[in-house]
Amino acid sequence: MREILLSTKDKETGQPDTLAVYDTSGPFGDAGETVDLTRGVKPLREDWIEARGDTQRLSGLSSDYGRQRLMDASLDHLRFNHARKHPRKAVGQPVTQMYYARQGVITPEMEYVAIRENQQLENQLGKVFQPITAEMVRDEVAAGRAIIPANINHPECEPMVIGRRFLVKINANIGNSPVTSDIASEVSKSIHAIRWGADTVMDLSTGANIHETREWILRNSPVPIGSVPLYQALEKVGGKAEDLTWEVYRDTLIEQAEQGVDYFTIHAGLLRKYIPHTFKRMTGIVSRGGSIMASWCTAHQQENFLYTHFEEICDILAAYDVGVSLGDGLRPGSQFDANDAAQFGELVTMGELTKIAWSRHVQVMIEGPGHVPMHLIAENMEMELRHCFDAPFYTLGPLVTDIAPGYDHITSAIGGSMIAQMGASMLCYVTPKEHLGLPDRDDVKTGVVTFKIAAHAADIAKGHPGAILRDHAMSKARYEFRWLDQFHLALDPDTAYAFHDATLPDDADKRA
Amino acid sequence: MREILLSTKDKETGQPDTLAVYDTSGPFGDAGETVDLTRGVKPLREDWIEARGDTQRLSGLSSDYGRQRLMDASLDHLRFNHARKHPRKAVGQPVTQMYYARQGVITPEMEYVAIRENQQLENQLGKVFQPITAEMVRDEVAAGRAIIPANINHPECEPMVIGRRFLVKINANIGNSPVTSDIASEVSKSIHAIRWGADTVMDLSTGANIHETREWILRNSPVPIGSVPLYQALEKVGGKAEDLTWEVYRDTLIEQAEQGVDYFTIHAGLLRKYIPHTFKRMTGIVSRGGSIMASWCTAHQQENFLYTHFEEICDILAAYDVGVSLGDGLRPGSQFDANDAAQFGELVTMGELTKIAWSRHVQVMIEGPGHVPMHLIAENMEMELRHCFDAPFYTLGPLVTDIAPGYDHITSAIGGSMIAQMGASMLCYVTPKEHLGLPDRDDVKTGVVTFKIAAHAADIAKGHPGAILRDHAMSKARYEFRWLDQFHLALDPDTAYAFHDATLPDDADKRA
Repeated sequence: MREILLSTKDKETGQPDTLAVYDTSGPFGDAGETVDLTRGVKPLREDWIEARGDTQRLSGLSSDYGRQRLMDASLDHLRFNHARKHPRKAVGQPVTQMYYARQGVITPEMEYVAIRENQQLENQLGKVFQPITAEMVRDEVAAGRAIIPANINHPECEPMVIGRRFLVKINANIGNSPVTSDIASEVSKSIHAIRWGADTVMDLSTGANIHETREWILRNSPVPIGSVPLYQALEKVGGKAEDLTWEVYRDTLIEQAEQGVDYFTIHAGLLRKYIPHTFKRMTGIVSRGGSIMASWCTAHQQENFLYTHFEEICDILAAYDVGVSLGDGLRPGSQFDANDAAQFGELVTMGELTKIAWSRHVQVMIEGPGHVPMHLIAENMEMELRHCFDAPFYTLGPLVTDIAPGYDHITSAIGGSMIAQMGASMLCYVTPKEHLGLPDRDDVKTGVVTFKIAAHAADIAKGHPGAILRDHAMSKARYEFRWLDQFHLALDPDTAYAFHDATLPDDADKRA
Repeated sequence: MREILLSTKDKETGQPDTLAVYDTSGPFGDAGETVDLTRGVKPLREDWIEARGDTQRLSGLSSDYGRQRLMDASLDHLRFNHARKHPRKAVGQPVTQMYYARQGVITPEMEYVAIRENQQLENQLGKVFQPITAEMVRDEVAAGRAIIPANINHPECEPMVIGRRFLVKINANIGNSPVTSDIASEVSKSIHAIRWGADTVMDLSTGANIHETREWILRNSPVPIGSVPLYQALEKVGGKAEDLTWEVYRDTLIEQAEQGVDYFTIHAGLLRKYIPHTFKRMTGIVSRGGSIMASWCTAHQQENFLYTHFEEICDILAAYDVGVSLGDGLRPGSQFDANDAAQFGELVTMGELTKIAWSRHVQVMIEGPGHVPMHLIAENMEMELRHCFDAPFYTLGPLVTDIAPGYDHITSAIGGSMIAQMGASMLCYVTPKEHLGLPDRDDVKTGVVTFKIAAHAADIAKGHPGAILRDHAMSKARYEFRWLDQFHLALDPDTAYAFHDATLPDDADKRA
């Protein structure tokens, strides 16, 4: 939480007015903290995890790849040297938040989340405020309607919740590529995204030193980190989809789970039988994970190994509390392909997989459509809730038109606001560079702020009791010409300040 | 219309594929035309107006102010010297498109509009296409469900239609202020807005030489020009609202009507009895016109003279075919004030005024709310249709949150897309400088392109048969990696091209 200090004073106490707002920046947003990136941020959850007594320190890394990278002295200069030498793993039972929620246990993570969601609203709203309780959080997590992504190997993470009874969250994608491969710049992008309000960050790296880059990002991240293990697995087999094996993939899951990734996108719902539906499409398969798995299935004439091994995948995830975000490998890549048989077929399979994951106490999100015209958005939300049993919906956009490359943060924020109002729990940001190139730091910021707008607009529309208070504080400051308060209350004070033209006559200011 | 030439060829004819799209840029978008700004654009409608035989050339200007400016030799260097020395005025009967529509007459303007709205879709869609006919345009205009803003003194204007059975339109505001007062830069902004897709432009100038600036803008505008005559009237009385008189206002109406302004925003719905409702508001009256008229009513303890003289106003407008856009002087300026008694009270009065205007054959639009959270947008649209008898709704935003100054083009495009899908006919753009300063050329472009997105997304969602074709062409080009076609099909080819990173690997390109 962050407290915004206003220039007005409380009439009774004479104290300055303040407004508490949800904040994702952790120690990076705390003036009293200095973060040494080579040491990472403080492991807030360390004691909580230890106290549960359900995990043990391993004697070393369990993945072949992790060990191989560790032994490679040529990587020493790239390596994050952290004190916590060995990862943890479950002893015996699942260690997921869902498992505990179902046992009736309120974890410290659930308590933290409840406090965080409430944003000290009792101070603003008084007795009329119905706070979110830790018990309610527990109940939502137990029912699968919400998830708390919190890998036991990511103790630096400040717990947060994704579910439609809570504030709408946003994710920012970062990651190097074969053409841009600099660890420092990816860590910097991650912190930049968090600083501006990303609730989670996905590392989609495909370039050099993916393993080491991820370690640096995780150790410096107060927000959950997601990944698509398939991308790294593909790099390990030289980029040839047909050379992928369950063994390479499995080792990658363990490697990343032991580093502390909080949720994995897994394209297990793309079955062979759905592939022919994509032949009728205008833009085929546009999801990278989807196209990799479709190539593999076609080359081997076999069912998707992520589907056939899904139970084993879940058992690995349950031992670290990695959430699964079921990837929509068949999401439409154009308005033309929206809501077609391929997309909805996969969605039904995702529902089947949701039940399997839940049976192993693994937390689940469902990834949703990319390109969908406005009049077809509601159907997506309804189908997701029905077929996936109210699991949180995590959407890309939807982009409501395809004719505005360079402005797809806007085409997607329009659809994102609408689907979040209808019940999507997390929105994946889109930057202005979508479809055109890789986002730089400025694009990351534009994407994050744009999606904070979409999420916040939905929070207001959904009637979240606290969301509108910041708008009210802003409006009051605007009406009273308190410019500094307006900047401080803005999602992006820097831009508001830079745009403000001090030469404005009073009257023009009042055009609101 | 503009034809986009693609790099693919028709399989049968071998001719290059093309796509016709709606275009507002007139001669400024025509490579075969050179516009001499000192002569203005060609008066396309001149012969049509002449042929109707319902108007006459006046022997001089009818407004005192117009004559006074003309006599002032010190303004000679600022003056647009056009061949058309004297304005036209109706002889006897009203000369409005609505009048003719009601007589069963299809004017050349209606025919032009029908052709334009169809975008040569018969070429793309073949026999399944149900074209918009001139008769349908006539019917919509006769019923007041659509307007064709087309002042007989603005023959340079390419006719366009605003109504919910047609493509959603957007307006761009420009105008100098007491701190920025350069005719050339306002004309340049106007052409810039038109070039990027503004369907109408409102000149909201409040600085020096408003009369001369407007003349330059009009003579160089192929799109309808709107204005708020009250702003200029206020300048004429030294900026003091209480010094406004009906006589000064009336003279301003005539002055601007004879210059060729196509629609006037008139805040006639703000009645004295609604003012007390605003005392309960967080942000009072934020409409500039609204606050001027509320001050006048309060100072004089009299009813709004725009209301009491509304019939006379309509008679003036009918003689030139100036449309009336009933200004929402009591629109909410914050989420807190949305959909309150002040706003909806005024809306009911606007309905009463709509009937009066229609009884005099004056074309009417209703201006709509600025700040409204998503869940309250539908009520606005429903109330407007009900109380204003299906007159076209022309909305500012709505802005769906107040906490993002610097990004209000986005907060308003979200609400704008939604209300346009629900039936709003024209969206007033908002630029990134909203609430912060005056827009420059770049802001104008960003505002226009953002609102083209909102309008287009709504056209798709409303099922306009042609809207989706451009998306399909883009998606196909994207799938086939035809980059140049993608740029040419984009709403903003320059930005798309600039953002495109030629170093992208193929795989990353496919993440759509």
